[in-house]
Amino acid sequence: MRVILWDGKEITLPGANPAVGMVIRDRAALWRLLINPLLYFGDDYCAGRIEIEGGLAPFLETVYLSMAQTPKFRRNPDPIAYRRNQPHLNSLSGSRRNIHHHYDIGNAFYQLWLDKEMVYTCGYFPEAAASLEDAQIAKMDLVCRKLRLRAGQTVVEAGCGWGALARHMAGRYGVKVRAYNISHEQISYARERAKAEGLEGQIEYIEDDYRNITGTYDVFVSVGMLEHVGPDHYWELGRVIDRCLAKDGIGLIHTIGQNSATPMSPWFLKRIFPGSYPPTLREMMTLFEPSEFTVLDVENLRLHYAKTCEHWLARFEHHQDQVREMFDECFIRAWRLYLSGCIVNFNIGALQLFQVVFSRPTNNLVPLTRSHLTAPIVES
Amino acid sequence: MRVILWDGKEITLPGANPAVGMVIRDRAALWRLLINPLLYFGDDYCAGRIEIEGGLAPFLETVYLSMAQTPKFRRNPDPIAYRRNQPHLNSLSGSRRNIHHHYDIGNAFYQLWLDKEMVYTCGYFPEAAASLEDAQIAKMDLVCRKLRLRAGQTVVEAGCGWGALARHMAGRYGVKVRAYNISHEQISYARERAKAEGLEGQIEYIEDDYRNITGTYDVFVSVGMLEHVGPDHYWELGRVIDRCLAKDGIGLIHTIGQNSATPMSPWFLKRIFPGSYPPTLREMMTLFEPSEFTVLDVENLRLHYAKTCEHWLARFEHHQDQVREMFDECFIRAWRLYLSGCIVNFNIGALQLFQVVFSRPTNNLVPLTRSHLTAPIVES
Repeated sequence: MRVILWDGKEITLPGANPAVGMVIRDRAALWRLLINPLLYFGDDYCAGRIEIEGGLAPFLETVYLSMAQTPKFRRNPDPIAYRRNQPHLNSLSGSRRNIHHHYDIGNAFYQLWLDKEMVYTCGYFPEAAASLEDAQIAKMDLVCRKLRLRAGQTVVEAGCGWGALARHMAGRYGVKVRAYNISHEQISYARERAKAEGLEGQIEYIEDDYRNITGTYDVFVSVGMLEHVGPDHYWELGRVIDRCLAKDGIGLIHTIGQNSATPMSPWFLKRIFPGSYPPTLREMMTLFEPSEFTVLDVENLRLHYAKTCEHWLARFEHHQDQVREMFDECFIRAWRLYLSGCIVNFNIGALQLFQVVFSRPTNNLVPLTRSHLTAPIVES
Repeated sequence: MRVILWDGKEITLPGANPAVGMVIRDRAALWRLLINPLLYFGDDYCAGRIEIEGGLAPFLETVYLSMAQTPKFRRNPDPIAYRRNQPHLNSLSGSRRNIHHHYDIGNAFYQLWLDKEMVYTCGYFPEAAASLEDAQIAKMDLVCRKLRLRAGQTVVEAGCGWGALARHMAGRYGVKVRAYNISHEQISYARERAKAEGLEGQIEYIEDDYRNITGTYDVFVSVGMLEHVGPDHYWELGRVIDRCLAKDGIGLIHTIGQNSATPMSPWFLKRIFPGSYPPTLREMMTLFEPSEFTVLDVENLRLHYAKTCEHWLARFEHHQDQVREMFDECFIRAWRLYLSGCIVNFNIGALQLFQVVFSRPTNNLVPLTRSHLTAPIVES
């Protein structure tokens, strides 16, 4: 890797990829990089005081792989480090602020680069060449199949985004859904769209925290919310599930995860997703063990998420003029860094995507084999 | 539940199933039951000082379910309790003694009630009515498919039983297998049978401990051995896997498990499987996390194991006259209790069966979907 300084001086770091380079535009940026690289690389890249040569993704891959081989960067399960860059922990009010920071910056922005259904979680590519729209439909079907949805069942969804999965489940599988989310913008969008599609009788979107879920349901589902719950609160979510899942119910949690407990980078926590943390499978067991839930099935869709983020980044770049009008150049560079970082982290195995299916221990109506996963899709 | 004493006095315990009862033949047996029920119920049942009315399995189900609702019986993650009834821990020599206790009591005995291939682990029933022979073949194929075996690959197997999986992989998938086991009887049988089937050029059966595995392999597989490793030694097994798995290798561990960390009953540990312990998924992560292995797939085959044990018990009962000639009535009653207990524990969800597939974090050649699991079986 080459480092090019403001005065044109070039340093080649040994052992790294010489095809990529970092241009540092001023002395202060270099100092900040030395003091706290995990925070200031992002900030100075966004401000244009750092430029990357040879492509952002190849550069990040070089850096992440070399960090993975450096023990002091490798793992930091220290809870203080985890909290240091988290202005709001995931209490009821903290969660609201954290979610507002990312999801309430404007539906029009997300519409520029998400699929038509506005699914902001990992897609599922039955074939590598599938489109993003198809991959999101396939993902929602995969989730519904894993849950073996049957018409007339009741479903509770914790963290429903813009409501796509709830619409999919209600429209294609004939179930009734109560979907919770604390993002005001997302809930507004979800309600309008359900109404437009004639699904308002089957779906109730509720602007509230997962901790306030009430009622009993045949199915519990949560896609892409656990990342925002925080490991300190898994026991609470587990208790909510225990309270709301019917005796012969079944549940699915879909979440970004990792192989060993490492906090997200301070830049990511400050600028992109405050309060976020991708759990290890070990940490996820805190959800299930106290109520003795049985884990039935775990699937790792890591490479599907790399591909999903590649689609998002390509669409985002395609619409960058419109994004610039909505925000500014710094915002564009921040989101480019965020999406590129995700692609790389999923590609090098620093992040995982776990889909976990579970039930109560005494539920003997669970599927015996996986044949239900490839059964024909029920069309309404 | 009814309790009938030696003098004919009958006590009905409130709230339990009145269709089942326990006859206690003498005062000493009653005392022992009160002092240490988890140990002495088994011993006194085997000695005929306790008889069961209404069927052993329904009786055990009643007892286990009521224990599951009694907090003090429910969980005991205390490591001292775990060790109390383990005469030999799972050191190199302790493991040898523990394995010898169960697996070296005579191949002729196991041949009476296992399937033709001598598979002493959970089968896989694609249809509920499948025979035991078919279920064991289907299980071995499921394992081979999850590992995506290709002709010419090298496989290391940790704990190979009587060698069926190694024969299946070598014969049907054209791979080379080194299979480790510390049971002398099993290894002798496995070698003879591989020779008889013309597979001795492809399989090397090695009478040695998993900790002494050498070499590098495309595939690591272990079916039904982790139960004998003990949670204190998972890190060692993890290190062995890290040492022996090729860069783009893939691995599978198939093990009995449980939802929360609970030691096996003292009777089971003393009389049936010394040194055994079925891990929770959380505990299994000790195998994977230190080397940052990625968990790709977990399947829970709990109900398949209940069905497998039902087949075993039926065959065992069918051959009880031959078993009595080999051993004695006490042995028959002990194995009846062991197999019935397994059926019930799998049926009520007190035991699980986890199949976990994993790879190194940077292996991007892992399957993207599960379509390889239903691909046609390669026949040699």
